Amino acid sequence: MPSKTDNRVGVQVEDTKVCVVMVGLPARGKSYIAQIAQRYLQWLSIPAQTFNVGNYRRNDAPQPTADFFDTNNAEGERKRRAAAEAAVADMLAWFRGGGVVAILDATNSTKERRRWINDICVTSGIEVLFVESKCDEQEIIMANIRDVKATSPDYRGQDPEAAAQDFLDRISKYEKIYKTIDEDGDEDEYTYLKIMNIGKQVIINRIQDYLQSRIVYYLMNLHIRPRSVWLSRHGESMYNLDGRIGGDTMLSPRGEQYARKLPDLVRESVGDDRPLTVWTSTLKRTIATARFLPLHYNQLQWKALDELDSGVCDGLTYQEIKDRFPDDFAARDEDKYNYRYRGGESYRDVVIRLEPIIMELERSEDILIVTHQAVLRCIYAYFMKKDQAKSPWMNVPLHTLIKLTPRAYGTEEIRYEANIPAVSTWRGKGSTAKHENPTPESL
Amino acid sequence: MPSKTDNRVGVQVEDTKVCVVMVGLPARGKSYIAQIAQRYLQWLSIPAQTFNVGNYRRNDAPQPTADFFDTNNAEGERKRRAAAEAAVADMLAWFRGGGVVAILDATNSTKERRRWINDICVTSGIEVLFVESKCDEQEIIMANIRDVKATSPDYRGQDPEAAAQDFLDRISKYEKIYKTIDEDGDEDEYTYLKIMNIGKQVIINRIQDYLQSRIVYYLMNLHIRPRSVWLSRHGESMYNLDGRIGGDTMLSPRGEQYARKLPDLVRESVGDDRPLTVWTSTLKRTIATARFLPLHYNQLQWKALDELDSGVCDGLTYQEIKDRFPDDFAARDEDKYNYRYRGGESYRDVVIRLEPIIMELERSEDILIVTHQAVLRCIYAYFMKKDQAKSPWMNVPLHTLIKLTPRAYGTEEIRYEANIPAVSTWRGKGSTAKHENPTPESL
Repeated sequence: MPSKTDNRVGVQVEDTKVCVVMVGLPARGKSYIAQIAQRYLQWLSIPAQTFNVGNYRRNDAPQPTADFFDTNNAEGERKRRAAAEAAVADMLAWFRGGGVVAILDATNSTKERRRWINDICVTSGIEVLFVESKCDEQEIIMANIRDVKATSPDYRGQDPEAAAQDFLDRISKYEKIYKTIDEDGDEDEYTYLKIMNIGKQVIINRIQDYLQSRIVYYLMNLHIRPRSVWLSRHGESMYNLDGRIGGDTMLSPRGEQYARKLPDLVRESVGDDRPLTVWTSTLKRTIATARFLPLHYNQLQWKALDELDSGVCDGLTYQEIKDRFPDDFAARDEDKYNYRYRGGESYRDVVIRLEPIIMELERSEDILIVTHQAVLRCIYAYFMKKDQAKSPWMNVPLHTLIKLTPRAYGTEEIRYEANIPAVSTWRGKGSTAKHENPTPESL
Repeated sequence: MPSKTDNRVGVQVEDTKVCVVMVGLPARGKSYIAQIAQRYLQWLSIPAQTFNVGNYRRNDAPQPTADFFDTNNAEGERKRRAAAEAAVADMLAWFRGGGVVAILDATNSTKERRRWINDICVTSGIEVLFVESKCDEQEIIMANIRDVKATSPDYRGQDPEAAAQDFLDRISKYEKIYKTIDEDGDEDEYTYLKIMNIGKQVIINRIQDYLQSRIVYYLMNLHIRPRSVWLSRHGESMYNLDGRIGGDTMLSPRGEQYARKLPDLVRESVGDDRPLTVWTSTLKRTIATARFLPLHYNQLQWKALDELDSGVCDGLTYQEIKDRFPDDFAARDEDKYNYRYRGGESYRDVVIRLEPIIMELERSEDILIVTHQAVLRCIYAYFMKKDQAKSPWMNVPLHTLIKLTPRAYGTEEIRYEANIPAVSTWRGKGSTAKHENPTPESL
């Protein structure tokens, strides 16, 4: 037998450990980048954790003024150094416990600080990937400052104008000592990604392996232009009526009604003149559901959006599956995320094949996706940071349009119901082999 | 019905046309980059064509000496300008005929030349992506010079040493006028990819859309370290014996013999101490085939390497498919590359899901892939530039190890036969519904 088989099916991680070290002045979106990188990696089942040095510093100095960040303030310097050391110590402990990608969220704005972190990581067998966000567009910086003064615990309960002024002062303290990475050409041995003005230009230096390349490709595709993603399942299908899974059947009469109503729901949510691109799977029921949408919407079919392949169980009811494959039925209940249908797929497999879809979604503006229950659960889990153990059990009702809008600190959700009755296609864990009404916690 | 449905399933191209304009001094690997970018795009069914200005110049000046390239040589200047104009004119005509990505292979080493090409393209509604290869590592440059003097028609029949010296002189003429892209900061409105020292550092500026991003991601993953890719089908399976397609059966006794012999074939080809990574599909017959390989080889299972999904025909013989689905049987013979099994996949679908595999292969060192007939055909077609109409009909015998070694001007192939008998799983176009002995042209 081979010494080591990685059956994570496509996510090659092996023994790599990576410390993503954020670099940049305050208000350059570092925490936003850290947060979505962590979300993306966790969605791919890669253990990822952010260590925010500011959170450690707040233990000692909960609401410091700008003076605290002056390099001539010895007390401030000492506390900030102690915070960095505490964050790094926790991070190393986390790596020893099986962590794969840690994100060290701090300004790390001097060469000395970067050298210190680099040397600690290298000594511990951890690869270092510096990710700098460099930005000189005032509009972007001011938007970040508004965000910080509204959400940072450093300014909680303070006058917004005074907070903004103090924060600008703090930034100017950092500007005095800040060096962009490899500014003097003596940091060119580091692996780094430098993102200028939110992706207008990126510099990638010495990327070594697969995991680094994945993180870099993801981060270079991000943008912050406002946009939304709309999700809908296909209208009720003939197989839904029979309680059968999979297949490639047409819409039921009520599913047809939903297809005719979908353009109204979309108009209500999107508005009239916002251009929308529509993605469907290659299966009849999603294409039919999208067919009454406005003619000027581009439509694309993606095989990667096809329903989870249930292999030998395709076309069966849950009762038939339970009767014919009782062990499989129980095993799937036990670990629905990892259970792979014989000759078919697991949720984990679906996530892997959806990864290019997520990458495209991150690159894109407004998109409407008409797809299937399991696929929608996986996409929803990405945006809403849902736990993999729970997301396969989530109820996604038929005949409902979901609007997701990514924001700096999470994703907003609005649901639009078509008010067209449909069967339930939801089944609870450990329940009878029947579709049933969803329980409150599945919503 | 929607105004436009792109059922290329995942390859979104829409109306984009891109001119990839190579930039760089001679002997920086521009033609190599152009060639593999074209191969990659064509493999993805994106119409791509390279226009090499040197080939146009050779009509007028077949074997010029270095003086020809001196900017003070008015006659040389005129002929070189005429060659560039002819190449660009042909390129524009090719775009009008439906071309999607043209690669303009020339030094384009001055700002004026780049401005001229940019303006022509923009006027014609063509996006411009400059791709510069910048290299100051003498070892890489000298390897390229050796290559040029051995293969370039400019030096055919000449003394190798004199050719090398003349080529060095030619490079020095270009060095006098060469400006790396955006050197003065006044080309920052261009979309460009600058590759330094074969990927050690890359700068990506203003990437706008999907197609550009795909080209850039592909090119930034390339390396030129020597390596090989080994391909093998699984050993003969129980379904192979029955003439059935698909399924997830175990190896036949002869297939088992092949699994036991594979380590010897690999040792013969790879040698003893070269580390190898083994990729299999998630199906039993590939995992079983790889299970006697040395313990120190890493093994990874990829769902993307699973056999082409034959949907409702899974587990049938060709005779049964012909009897039950005669129209499908005929349609598949008619256009095997695009035919999608009901509820299953086409070769085109397989290529789309193999794209991340190809990306990983390009990033990787030595890899052995144990996979299935259709998947192997697609990977082979990528490396060997096989026509899509022909590759699905290619004979890939069981119990044979194929070694592919990418070189600057194509891929070398060696086959190692295990000399263990196996059934044929090949069937000719328009033939009876039986597996048969391959014809010479299928090899």
